[in-house]
Amino acid sequence: MNVSKPKKRLAAIFAGLFCLSLAASSRGQVFENIAGFLPTHAEAERALEREFRLIPDAGHAESDLRYLTSRPHMAGTEASHQIAQWLRDQYQSYGFDAQIVSYTAWLPEPRDVELELVKPQTRALATPEAPYDGDPDTYDPRAVRAFNTYSPSGEVTAPVVYVNFGTPDDYRELAALGVSVEGKVVLARYGEGYRGVKARLAEQHKAAALILYSDPEEDGYAAGTPYPQGPWRPMSSIQRGSILYTEIYPGDPLTPEVASVPGAQRLAPADAANLPRIPTMPISANDAAVILRSLRGKRVPRGWQGGLPFTYRVGGSSGTQVHMKIVMDYAERPLYDVIAKLHGTSDDQWVILGNHHDAWVFGAADPGSGTAAMLETARALGTLARSGWKPRRTIVMCHWDGEEPGLLGSTEWVEQNRAELQAKAVAYINADVGVAGPDFAASATPSLKDLVRDATREVADPDSGASVYDAWVNSTESPTHRLSETGRQSANPQWAPKPPVGDLGAGSDFSPFFDYAGIASIDMGFGGDYGVYHSIYDDFYWMKHFGDPTFAYHVALARILGTIALRLDEADILPFDYSNYASAVARNLADLQNRAMHQPEAAAILKPVGQASAQFTASAARAEDALRAISAAPSDPATEEKINRELPEVEQSLLAPDGLTGRPWFKHTIFAPGAYAGYSSQAMPGISQALDDSDTATLRREADSLSAALLRASARLDEIARLARQAPAPTFEGH
Amino acid sequence: MNVSKPKKRLAAIFAGLFCLSLAASSRGQVFENIAGFLPTHAEAERALEREFRLIPDAGHAESDLRYLTSRPHMAGTEASHQIAQWLRDQYQSYGFDAQIVSYTAWLPEPRDVELELVKPQTRALATPEAPYDGDPDTYDPRAVRAFNTYSPSGEVTAPVVYVNFGTPDDYRELAALGVSVEGKVVLARYGEGYRGVKARLAEQHKAAALILYSDPEEDGYAAGTPYPQGPWRPMSSIQRGSILYTEIYPGDPLTPEVASVPGAQRLAPADAANLPRIPTMPISANDAAVILRSLRGKRVPRGWQGGLPFTYRVGGSSGTQVHMKIVMDYAERPLYDVIAKLHGTSDDQWVILGNHHDAWVFGAADPGSGTAAMLETARALGTLARSGWKPRRTIVMCHWDGEEPGLLGSTEWVEQNRAELQAKAVAYINADVGVAGPDFAASATPSLKDLVRDATREVADPDSGASVYDAWVNSTESPTHRLSETGRQSANPQWAPKPPVGDLGAGSDFSPFFDYAGIASIDMGFGGDYGVYHSIYDDFYWMKHFGDPTFAYHVALARILGTIALRLDEADILPFDYSNYASAVARNLADLQNRAMHQPEAAAILKPVGQASAQFTASAARAEDALRAISAAPSDPATEEKINRELPEVEQSLLAPDGLTGRPWFKHTIFAPGAYAGYSSQAMPGISQALDDSDTATLRREADSLSAALLRASARLDEIARLARQAPAPTFEGH
Repeated sequence: MNVSKPKKRLAAIFAGLFCLSLAASSRGQVFENIAGFLPTHAEAERALEREFRLIPDAGHAESDLRYLTSRPHMAGTEASHQIAQWLRDQYQSYGFDAQIVSYTAWLPEPRDVELELVKPQTRALATPEAPYDGDPDTYDPRAVRAFNTYSPSGEVTAPVVYVNFGTPDDYRELAALGVSVEGKVVLARYGEGYRGVKARLAEQHKAAALILYSDPEEDGYAAGTPYPQGPWRPMSSIQRGSILYTEIYPGDPLTPEVASVPGAQRLAPADAANLPRIPTMPISANDAAVILRSLRGKRVPRGWQGGLPFTYRVGGSSGTQVHMKIVMDYAERPLYDVIAKLHGTSDDQWVILGNHHDAWVFGAADPGSGTAAMLETARALGTLARSGWKPRRTIVMCHWDGEEPGLLGSTEWVEQNRAELQAKAVAYINADVGVAGPDFAASATPSLKDLVRDATREVADPDSGASVYDAWVNSTESPTHRLSETGRQSANPQWAPKPPVGDLGAGSDFSPFFDYAGIASIDMGFGGDYGVYHSIYDDFYWMKHFGDPTFAYHVALARILGTIALRLDEADILPFDYSNYASAVARNLADLQNRAMHQPEAAAILKPVGQASAQFTASAARAEDALRAISAAPSDPATEEKINRELPEVEQSLLAPDGLTGRPWFKHTIFAPGAYAGYSSQAMPGISQALDDSDTATLRREADSLSAALLRASARLDEIARLARQAPAPTFEGH
Repeated sequence: MNVSKPKKRLAAIFAGLFCLSLAASSRGQVFENIAGFLPTHAEAERALEREFRLIPDAGHAESDLRYLTSRPHMAGTEASHQIAQWLRDQYQSYGFDAQIVSYTAWLPEPRDVELELVKPQTRALATPEAPYDGDPDTYDPRAVRAFNTYSPSGEVTAPVVYVNFGTPDDYRELAALGVSVEGKVVLARYGEGYRGVKARLAEQHKAAALILYSDPEEDGYAAGTPYPQGPWRPMSSIQRGSILYTEIYPGDPLTPEVASVPGAQRLAPADAANLPRIPTMPISANDAAVILRSLRGKRVPRGWQGGLPFTYRVGGSSGTQVHMKIVMDYAERPLYDVIAKLHGTSDDQWVILGNHHDAWVFGAADPGSGTAAMLETARALGTLARSGWKPRRTIVMCHWDGEEPGLLGSTEWVEQNRAELQAKAVAYINADVGVAGPDFAASATPSLKDLVRDATREVADPDSGASVYDAWVNSTESPTHRLSETGRQSANPQWAPKPPVGDLGAGSDFSPFFDYAGIASIDMGFGGDYGVYHSIYDDFYWMKHFGDPTFAYHVALARILGTIALRLDEADILPFDYSNYASAVARNLADLQNRAMHQPEAAAILKPVGQASAQFTASAARAEDALRAISAAPSDPATEEKINRELPEVEQSLLAPDGLTGRPWFKHTIFAPGAYAGYSSQAMPGISQALDDSDTATLRREADSLSAALLRASARLDEIARLARQAPAPTFEGH
């Protein structure tokens, strides 16, 4: 099979206009063009993609997932090393240049995690998850007990205060009720943000310890039928998870901004700003019910009642006390990343895909489903390569170790290779929890949101037979959904808005690429009724019975990943949409300016940012016009290469070299995980936080930093426009 | 003691300006004036009120409630007759002219109410409420079994569909899920509107039968601690209640618009439009859990999951079936209203207070608390009368029978005495469920809302020691409340808005006065954590332990009732605020015009209503000005009397003689209970319903009717202005 591009076709054969954002405006029609491709090359790209999409196979994905979930394989254990070796071997068998890259990290293993109610009566808690005969994996003695990674060791006996989700608002409500958590054990339900932020807030409010639990309202019986009859969390299930303060910095806590390799300079653990300081552990709804039922004191505020069948109370009196004992074994433990390259015609630019391979227990959905999909993407790319195709750019597929404890493997690799990545990386595409149901969802940097949407038009949704794009629109605009929000149906059910692509927050391995290195990133997967997150039940049985019984969504994900990779890999002009980026910046800035409206000083400080944002918008429009002008015909390869080197680096010019105030590891001026959310994105985080804190000095510094970043980005876009305008006059004999 | 008014004081002694709405604008300051009183008379009124408020006593209220709750006394039973006799005797002992007025009504008693689950297994349900040793009343064998009054007899075996609250929106969601209730047993939770509307909607959707249950999310453990440890509904408790379609018409179903006295013309039951047609019964959360747990089928839509500890499903398949059997004994049964008058100097105008005396079981909060408070109001008024005071107008205190089945006793009395009431009634003040906690709440016709607010400034809140008004402001604007709505505290906690007085809906005995006879009405009481509504647990034990252990709120209510009664009774010029009424009309009309904005035909039809509303507003302003002008000094008694006869009748001129389209009993054009809500108020109900139904002919008719009503009201106000302007010039020697 010859899938090499027909290089000398007449431009006139393809009538459509090359346009960076054409895809978005021609929704629902047959596509003639592809963003980033000259009209002369679009048909070849289409043929290549069609060829590619025929290869991923449900049987392969199922068998890969079966292997990946064959044993518990937590980071730092030998099982994690074995999975890495197996992954390397798979890639080598597909024809990739694959190797294991190793780091170490300061990483605990739990030796003892005890909890008992000591008042009003004595009762042992910390009950393990219940096994189920139909699913022998749940009996596996190698499964790690439930714990929160990076909890310190400690022993506490104290009264309990229920704090709802443990958010800043929740602590404000508690204060209004006159309840203090000082010296108490805080009991918080999972949900509404990253568990590490709950730990940090409990510590800030001087709690003695923290217990996290899964309330059935969030992901248990109130959400749907629990495992083993359904996909939701049973009463005995416990959500493991890290409480590392990754919103301060992720990665090995002892080596911020430095790769944790032999000889690296290490902090003392006491100096690591992202290490939690109060003992923390997770428990099941069953165990939480025992504690909650015994609490006295005020009735909880509105919205704090969860799904357990009794009245929730705030507690705080000495009538209910628990004894908690946690013994952690901290050590430098090994991490094994797998880096597999399919070398391109040029090795100067890399299209990077990644997911972690470490799991809390079996990790079927998290992360195995994404891994199995990536393996099918890789096998298909390898098959094409064996048939004679060679990628234009190098495709790099990564499987990270130690994501669960705190993005360890990805962060260390990015810290080690930052300069090379910033020179070569086109984009990073993350596929954690690739399949947990049928509902596609994605987050991305604004310049790549339409690329994601476009790719989903090319792949069939297994359920409906329509495209994933159409199913995605439907799942965000279902009649039931509309009814519940507005009380009546939309007048025109045919009207389908663009499906939402979120902003990048945190919580998976795109964070070091995007937040730290300024690499344009995408995070995506199929979600759904997934209640067994971070439990022993996230296993093959769960996936086969509930998540994706036919593995058709694994195949769909492999196809989307490959389609995006091939578009970035083969593009004539990389399909970055900076007009969309500039709109996002302007919109977010307007929100901040509204917040500052009644503070004349703050409003004045933000004024130059508005000018910089306007300049960014103008430069993006000029660059887009110039690129459109050269797109009517093939351009000259040298100019194309220069433009393609510049295009990804616009994102990097939005980094502040010294990072955000108070958390220098986070260098992106436009997006960061919220300092008090942890997962979800905060726009213009430096300014937003300074406004929250009414801190004029910081506001001034962050505004300067943001303005400078926007002006750097403008200058880069102006350079792109200049390059595009210098391109030789159109000719029918392009590169 | 001489509390007669000092009739010849110099007007100059009182510097303040008489003003209909002064009270509202001088909030928080010392009051010199009282709305409705000439400056010369305000001080005497104050002295009278102070005297009055010293008399109500917690010991008396407690002992009265103990008697009232000493036996179950459902309407139609001899116990209800005994309570009526006792009430008559009390009033006679206070010096009132009291008598029993009797009617009959077509009224069922339950002979058999059975329910069993027959699939997937057999299990008897319809379990009675559990007794509690600490509260011997709960063992009383005379307590009626749980049933829904006016359910027909019937026997059904069918699958079950869960319909959430059973509202129109809920049925729309069900249709979107493709689920039909035709031929099925519908299971609906209580809440979000009147149970009779749930029955009517189930009937309209062709259900075979209806089961109502109390979900713990509404008034059970999710709301707070259940009885006997707390005030909320325990799992075995059942809410009795009528399903008569009172939103079509209340009162005896066989005699709409006619008093049910011997010889009255009666409909055949089959022709009574307010009688339900499908068997309906209420059950406990315990029994509902058995059924809900066995339902299969689709997971419920968002917001349908209640507080029971499992996943709710819609059901509908034959896998879950129940067998229901209801045998009702329908008959003409007797009703005993108590009407007690304290005759005034003139008997030409009546100030009417009322509450029902029939109860589902013991009726401590509902209705005993309001009755006990009214008795203290009456005792205090009687004490003043014995000391030499004579009311200016006649005070009429009523205790209705048969409210629970469907406002029977009050409706028949109003139907019988409509002409006299429309000539004499100044206002009707209702005090059902007078005390169920510490939070004051009220609804009223717009012209009397400030009168309610003003009265609460004069009475101390037992908890805080501040006025009931201040406590009322705090309870609607608590920090917790503010936090939960906005996420942050109001910048200025001192800022206190007017506390909300709602519009009159339905659900108690003000409905025939207001909706049918156009008598200005008020409904009020102290609410709180009241989860035992219509259950056996609404008894003396509940009130003594949770509702009002010291009976201080009973005393506060007696004081407020008496203060309002005395202001209406003694007023020089009755304190009706028609400017406020006109604002309410204009506001509600604007809402309807917004809804009609995109329907040119409807918008055109509403245009004349806007003109009529503007005229009403102008006339109200002119009348207010004219009344203010005569208020600088005493006016002449003959004019005063003419004005006072006109003032209450403005409300009556808002009635449409033929009533609303489809429900002619409801004659008020501005307010009615919502046709699909049942309790809550619907503004401009004829127009609102016509817009909902897109029914142009009806819209035209209702718009004409409303315009005519507003123009009649304007004409009455113009007449008032004319009378006021004709008043003699101010003199220092008034009446």
